[in-house]
Amino acid sequence: MPFETVSEFRVRYAETDQMGVVYHANYLVWCEIGRTDFIRTAGRSYADLERDGVLLAVTEARLRFRASARYDDLVRVRTSLESVGSRGLTFGYRIERATDDVVLVTASTALVSLRADGRPTALPAVLRTWLEGHGDG
Amino acid sequence: MPFETVSEFRVRYAETDQMGVVYHANYLVWCEIGRTDFIRTAGRSYADLERDGVLLAVTEARLRFRASARYDDLVRVRTSLESVGSRGLTFGYRIERATDDVVLVTASTALVSLRADGRPTALPAVLRTWLEGHGDG
Amino acid sequence: MPFETVSEFRVRYAETDQMGVVYHANYLVWCEIGRTDFIRTAGRSYADLERDGVLLAVTEARLRFRASARYDDLVRVRTSLESVGSRGLTFGYRIERATDDVVLVTASTALVSLRADGRPTALPAVLRTWLEGHGDG
Amino acid sequence: MPFETVSEFRVRYAETDQMGVVYHANYLVWCEIGRTDFIRTAGRSYADLERDGVLLAVTEARLRFRASARYDDLVRVRTSLESVGSRGLTFGYRIERATDDVVLVTASTALVSLRADGRPTALPAVLRTWLEGHGDG
Repeated sequence: MPFETVSEFRVRYAETDQMGVVYHANYLVWCEIGRTDFIRTAGRSYADLERDGVLLAVTEARLRFRASARYDDLVRVRTSLESVGSRGLTFGYRIERATDDVVLVTASTALVSLRADGRPTALPAVLRTWLEGHGDG
Repeated sequence: MPFETVSEFRVRYAETDQMGVVYHANYLVWCEIGRTDFIRTAGRSYADLERDGVLLAVTEARLRFRASARYDDLVRVRTSLESVGSRGLTFGYRIERATDDVVLVTASTALVSLRADGRPTALPAVLRTWLEGHGDG
Repeated sequence: MPFETVSEFRVRYAETDQMGVVYHANYLVWCEIGRTDFIRTAGRSYADLERDGVLLAVTEARLRFRASARYDDLVRVRTSLESVGSRGLTFGYRIERATDDVVLVTASTALVSLRADGRPTALPAVLRTWLEGHGDG
Repeated sequence: MPFETVSEFRVRYAETDQMGVVYHANYLVWCEIGRTDFIRTAGRSYADLERDGVLLAVTEARLRFRASARYDDLVRVRTSLESVGSRGLTFGYRIERATDDVVLVTASTALVSLRADGRPTALPAVLRTWLEGHGDG
């Protein structure tokens, strides 16, 4: 079973739409919360990474919406690393309602490592080593 | 060449992030603007559809991020219909910077037709007929 | 000293803008998180209130922006009740950076109690009684 | 009557909440759209201003919510300049539903002029002169 981090928080009123459920684009924001917590576990916050001049930019995203979260629901984002290369990595997400474990959304995002000027750069070695040890296979 | 609608608007400051570009989840919001304009062209606004008790819920989304939009850029969303069935449909999007036609994002979203109680329902016949005449193939 | 509730959470990347700090409109969203937690403490979640047909709509908001929150900062929202009447109430907020207690924003919002059809209605008696006992003076 | 600029756009689905109307924090985003258009009229886009190293940061905001905008409504933001000083300025906003001129929100925001390092700076003289000629009195 792959290493995963778990993030939990409550749905904000601002995140609902007139259908009475969470507006779908917000799940991408929640994936980012999961990703931030995953990277923090590696001993390096993403905020620190950026201060060191390494940006991770999303190049691809896939989401499957299975059930709807509602206002004030406690949700849980399970984040794991699907693959890691020299210049990029792919995260997988499973977003659940925490009270009954119903899967709301499954998703993945591919990211590339960029310098502040937008040019591709290698992931910091220490981060890459850690990530390779905590990826899926 | 498939029928497409074109939506244009400027990037809002609120849509940028600290990387200095548009935050990636906003492209999903822009896809929705494109979809709204596409359906309006069918002679039926999506707002009317909802008032008639037909909701379109996103079940799947795929996005490829190719270049970045920046604050105050004029962007253009080209929306076309990739497929339409009795209970759902898939839209395709090509989001460009309007000033130089650079492609920023390509995306697709699959939607299902639901009643207010969340149960699947058929697309209204008149809308489906129109959509089938304006789909891709 | 007035009764207050304390909510803490980390700044999301999505909440930053190209100035490198939190986009100002997000503080209103954070006020709502504080308000939700305050009402929950009264033994009644706002989600329950809405299910019972009582909506609280914001009629006025005032914000003073004193310092900026940044991505991944731990922020704290202190929420108190400034006044409560039969049909409305006013909350006060003090938003701080949790790590050094620097005040980022002070704000207040006035809300009225509405029924689902948009007409004014009285606050539920049990809630009003609790609120009056936990207001500022 | 003060000089004003007029911005018009349609309400996005993402801007609604489960109350079925526009989530209140979005009006602050719309004020910014109005402000951007006002400054553009001065012959200088705000995007250019920032590239020249002058940021305008919001220090205060006041909003009165009078009626609700709904999804797909055409809304109009009327923006005028309430006051202008050497280091800051205050804008006023009147947000209306364009189809029947109903006033939805009135608001004002105070902004200060900052350099990229966050220190106060004077507004560029050419902009200030233009603004003083287009303010309210």
